[in-house]
Amino acid sequence: MTQQAKIYDFMADALALAEEAMGQGEVPVGAVIVHHVTGAVIAATHNLVERTQDCTAHAEMLAIAQAQEALGTKSLSACDIWVSLEPCAMCAGALAHARIRRIYYGAEDKKGGAVDNGPHLFNQPTIHHRPEIYGGLSADKAAALLTQFFKEKR
Amino acid sequence: MTQQAKIYDFMADALALAEEAMGQGEVPVGAVIVHHVTGAVIAATHNLVERTQDCTAHAEMLAIAQAQEALGTKSLSACDIWVSLEPCAMCAGALAHARIRRIYYGAEDKKGGAVDNGPHLFNQPTIHHRPEIYGGLSADKAAALLTQFFKEKR
Repeated sequence: MTQQAKIYDFMADALALAEEAMGQGEVPVGAVIVHHVTGAVIAATHNLVERTQDCTAHAEMLAIAQAQEALGTKSLSACDIWVSLEPCAMCAGALAHARIRRIYYGAEDKKGGAVDNGPHLFNQPTIHHRPEIYGGLSADKAAALLTQFFKEKR
Repeated sequence: MTQQAKIYDFMADALALAEEAMGQGEVPVGAVIVHHVTGAVIAATHNLVERTQDCTAHAEMLAIAQAQEALGTKSLSACDIWVSLEPCAMCAGALAHARIRRIYYGAEDKKGGAVDNGPHLFNQPTIHHRPEIYGGLSADKAAALLTQFFKEKR
């Protein structure tokens, strides 16, 4: 029960970051990386594609960069990521390179997701690292933010 | 014939960058991005994962960043990339986000490639952009560099 409460707290952080992104006109996706031994939050980011004009500036990529800098190493094997949306192929591939321990994600992304949709990247025989995956956490809230964002855009 | 000569010149540049990477103890992969209208080389990079301790610092990712900075926009739809190795899922996903026009690659990567191997990312129905793909250019030289690198590592 304590464990579950802890999980939802980090997803709440990711969702708060997603809301912050929306306030800045960015696609509302937020991410948090936590060191699973110390419990420390070592990255807390959101999508910044528009502000940076960098198509790779997804929440997960920025979080990986922050976490690597915090730890001084390219391995995030002691870390877990909480992200409000199912990662795309780029981000899932990057999380495999980073050897992340666990991925907790919010809403499924039937169009762009690459974990439980599309290429199902971690089920590919060629994948060199397969994290534990926990999908659908606070999925309704994560999806509602995205729906609201794209509705306002139209 | 002229067109073909031009293709091989840019791949030669990518291979020279791959050799430079090897000299620095980096996995030998090089990449060049060319604006297809002006013919200008707007990015020329190689793998920097070890020096930066950033698992995402693949040649293609760094090239995308350079090209976006050169153009001041996140769209690389007027650009082609020459890369000495078949892109992985992270890089192929990023090239799709960048809406790159063409991918010319050198050696196939049966273990980590995501274009003509593994998830065959651009053949997935969910992919939102499908560039033209030309694989196997100077493949022997590109593969020989990688074989030499990993032999010396052992």
